[in-house]
Amino acid sequence: MFGLVLGIDPGVSRCGYGAVRREGAQLEAVGAGVIRTPGSDTLPNRLASLEEELGRVVSELGPDALAVERVLFQANTRTAMSVGQASGLALAVAARAGIPVTHYSPNEVKLAVVGYGGAEKHQVQTMVARLLGLHEVPRPPDAADALALAICHAWRLDATPDEPDAPGTAPRLSAAIQTALAKEGR
Amino acid sequence: MFGLVLGIDPGVSRCGYGAVRREGAQLEAVGAGVIRTPGSDTLPNRLASLEEELGRVVSELGPDALAVERVLFQANTRTAMSVGQASGLALAVAARAGIPVTHYSPNEVKLAVVGYGGAEKHQVQTMVARLLGLHEVPRPPDAADALALAICHAWRLDATPDEPDAPGTAPRLSAAIQTALAKEGR
Repeated sequence: MFGLVLGIDPGVSRCGYGAVRREGAQLEAVGAGVIRTPGSDTLPNRLASLEEELGRVVSELGPDALAVERVLFQANTRTAMSVGQASGLALAVAARAGIPVTHYSPNEVKLAVVGYGGAEKHQVQTMVARLLGLHEVPRPPDAADALALAICHAWRLDATPDEPDAPGTAPRLSAAIQTALAKEGR
Repeated sequence: MFGLVLGIDPGVSRCGYGAVRREGAQLEAVGAGVIRTPGSDTLPNRLASLEEELGRVVSELGPDALAVERVLFQANTRTAMSVGQASGLALAVAARAGIPVTHYSPNEVKLAVVGYGGAEKHQVQTMVARLLGLHEVPRPPDAADALALAICHAWRLDATPDEPDAPGTAPRLSAAIQTALAKEGR
């Protein structure tokens, strides 16, 4: 069991966040959005503003756990730098609020949400909408990505060691996917 | 002219800082040290602790400008990630205190302090001691590196456009190096 999980997809220009909680057998989106900082401002100001906004989101949503995308530095260095800086701020905010943080790689998130580590971005986003019982894919994409992180961690937390299908999350995940699809009448 | 310049060599395990100001024709070290965070603690806690300590250093030293090492991601990704996260915190702290930040690459610092972009680390540290009129190389090395950043920015600030040898910093630097060496009786 878990309370509220807040996913964070770190970035300086756009930092996605999305919170989910469990309602019976269903996951529910509690809030999601994107924190943007203007490219016209200085980098230090943007980072200070991002940290303040992250603090506000955490304070308003009151999550029990944070799931933050693990930064992998294969991309171009400028992007990687921004993501590293943004993630550092998110982790510091979490620590100050006493909230535990877990990291997930993009592949782990895809595996948890779609059941396939090589899934396309749009497949993840479609599945996020289904799992959360939403009629549309959450926009912008950064918010959907953050919700996917939160879902990934929610499954992990939900698979507590004293439950039959632990430690794997697949059985519960499959069940949830089935439930979500059934609701849609498929 | 400039007031106090604080150099920061960002890192999570060890974050060097060092402040310099001008006393007549001589640069003077005002304070330097290293903020360490224990590897036994969680990364979020370490980052929160680093940010708090950086805030304390800035508040106690009251710098007019910050010089932060520009992060280049050619090294191993784990180190690069840590440096990115630490630098993000330093920039946010600076912005909150309303202090302008300038970035310098390691090569720019070497060029400013030793006059040669390919200088060895120990040459930079020896020159830092000379330029600041210190009898020994500042320890640990992270503190010396941070002082080198501060010296680099101090020269840049000192070369104001209305002075004869601006915009280059080399003439003033050469003069200072001569002065430093003369003091040592060489």
